[in-house]
Amino acid sequence: MTGAVGFGVFTAGGEPPRVGFRVGDGVLDLAAHGLGEAFEAPRLNDFLALGRRTWEDVTARAAELVDGGAELLPLERVTPRLPFEVADYVDFYSSLEHATNLGRLFRPDAEPLLPNWRHLPVGYHGRAGTVVVSGTPVVRPCGQAKGPDDPAPRFGASRRLDIELELGWVVGVGSALGEPVPASAFRDHVFGVVLVNDWSARDLQAWEYQPLGPFLGKSFATSISAWVTPLALLEERLVEGPPQDPEPLPYLRGGGPAALDADLEVEIAGTVVSHTNARGLYWTMAQQLAHATVNGASLRTGDLCASGTISGSEQGSEGSLIELTWNGSRPLRLGDGSERTFLEDGDEVVLRGRAGHVELGEVRGTILPARC
Amino acid sequence: MTGAVGFGVFTAGGEPPRVGFRVGDGVLDLAAHGLGEAFEAPRLNDFLALGRRTWEDVTARAAELVDGGAELLPLERVTPRLPFEVADYVDFYSSLEHATNLGRLFRPDAEPLLPNWRHLPVGYHGRAGTVVVSGTPVVRPCGQAKGPDDPAPRFGASRRLDIELELGWVVGVGSALGEPVPASAFRDHVFGVVLVNDWSARDLQAWEYQPLGPFLGKSFATSISAWVTPLALLEERLVEGPPQDPEPLPYLRGGGPAALDADLEVEIAGTVVSHTNARGLYWTMAQQLAHATVNGASLRTGDLCASGTISGSEQGSEGSLIELTWNGSRPLRLGDGSERTFLEDGDEVVLRGRAGHVELGEVRGTILPARC
Repeated sequence: MTGAVGFGVFTAGGEPPRVGFRVGDGVLDLAAHGLGEAFEAPRLNDFLALGRRTWEDVTARAAELVDGGAELLPLERVTPRLPFEVADYVDFYSSLEHATNLGRLFRPDAEPLLPNWRHLPVGYHGRAGTVVVSGTPVVRPCGQAKGPDDPAPRFGASRRLDIELELGWVVGVGSALGEPVPASAFRDHVFGVVLVNDWSARDLQAWEYQPLGPFLGKSFATSISAWVTPLALLEERLVEGPPQDPEPLPYLRGGGPAALDADLEVEIAGTVVSHTNARGLYWTMAQQLAHATVNGASLRTGDLCASGTISGSEQGSEGSLIELTWNGSRPLRLGDGSERTFLEDGDEVVLRGRAGHVELGEVRGTILPARC
Repeated sequence: MTGAVGFGVFTAGGEPPRVGFRVGDGVLDLAAHGLGEAFEAPRLNDFLALGRRTWEDVTARAAELVDGGAELLPLERVTPRLPFEVADYVDFYSSLEHATNLGRLFRPDAEPLLPNWRHLPVGYHGRAGTVVVSGTPVVRPCGQAKGPDDPAPRFGASRRLDIELELGWVVGVGSALGEPVPASAFRDHVFGVVLVNDWSARDLQAWEYQPLGPFLGKSFATSISAWVTPLALLEERLVEGPPQDPEPLPYLRGGGPAALDADLEVEIAGTVVSHTNARGLYWTMAQQLAHATVNGASLRTGDLCASGTISGSEQGSEGSLIELTWNGSRPLRLGDGSERTFLEDGDEVVLRGRAGHVELGEVRGTILPARC
């Protein structure tokens, strides 16, 4: 398998939506190969619920069909849909560099990293109903914002619309309420990964987020890849996470290699503005899973858990504009000579990822003007 | 209609789950009355999606059948299920008294109400997958906690398990992504209400909640009534909210009478420990709706939005133990002579509500011991 690889849902030629396996510029129509009813569905959830053995068997069988010369639909002839029905969407905050940068920007007079950060993977719930597939335009959100010197909040279009480059993992097999899932069971529950653009309106967020966290600053849209890349095809790029100090509590240990060595990039309006790698995330996917369930919260098929913005330590490796431009104070120069602090209407953002010879499904989105 | 009234889903006599209309101690089997396929479903969602005209027609028809002497199943012979599949769960923070109390407790050295509070209904997303029906036991959650003087976080069972008395509204008709829903459209989108117990592990919450809000301190369980009371039966008790100062921005106006005049009570281990009323909430349901969608976030059938803890200004009208006992410093004395600061294993909590002659479905839950 080379090029972009993953499972998704598509329509083509006026037929009902069904499950496909993308390899590079082609899509294998799995519904047409008698693999079962789960592949004749408008969402991956039925397949995802079948468990690791089936995921691996189907992935192997799909690869075999492709290698054997099965006919592929040309990618440009299919219309991808949201690949799975999102159950709950959780967003973590697992990059040390990102959390440090945002702490400096949002709380300049305090220690940038809060006391809990190195002890647990900080996370919160996002809006599942506004997760959209790559290619869906994003309307610039409206809402309240208030600068520190404004006498009262203003209402209007967000002026500080940003992106967040993230990696998301997708739950296949759920769990029972009241039963924590150990980090070691990561591979039994998690089917695969998608790239995530967690669009963020920084001005709305800054005004609203205390004390209960982000709400409207994030809930207008979250874009994900159309193709979910199964972990079974990423074995060689699943690696140990970075050293952790202090040593995490026992329930956060034993997850094995659950960081993904994937090179990532962000392109805005035709210019690549950031390069980074997901393996540097402080908290691994298995640790995120163990933490999210340690209180007995159950998992469901279709749960999406994203890493939080992935930023590296070097300039040009940050996964958001607020970091890349240091809160708008250092504009980026794009290839066409224009400058950006935050996103402008008409800007297309593309996230790309590659783990060895396997590309992750890209995430595209174009900003439409506000409607207020 | 008198007594508890609402639509729900139940099983009885080994038959498949179906939709019923509860009146007092009886349940009308709607599937048996030829009202359509939506009532032969294991969830209310199909009915909820049909819109206000249908909700009102069906409610009137059900009442007519009951008044006409249609056979009712005895309540004790039916097993209620989660009445609807929860799409997204949003929890607001709309009680001025509660927000002030929690500000005093969590941030004793600062102004209790944050600057945004009187300008917008603060809210955040909770976990939809762990919303459970009244009667479901709640396992005491485990997790990390750290007191201000502890050198490091400890792992273990929550020692400060609490309740939150809330009122939730249930979305029937969804909306399009990118299109705000005005406050004036509240009745076209919202089908009805349920009582909500937003169980909260205060020790987990205090350690984890900065900067992104509550996560594991809340996500282990949220209990709702088995019966959703339609707004159509609450007309006389839908009232204007309290005066607001400063005047809210225009998008938060025009919701009409969208506060619910409902007397509420909390019973713990057989003793009623709090009495309050939902009409005192600073932000109305219509304002919550307008705010949640002003950024273009779409609604889906089955979205659940809860008020946040409902506390009054008098002692004994607080909707959580952390307030009733002032962070455990003033234990409550129960009818059996025992004392409570937070919940003990085996405690049963019951929330009840009454709007005029209509009772809301109660919410019961018993605490099971932790499993760590």
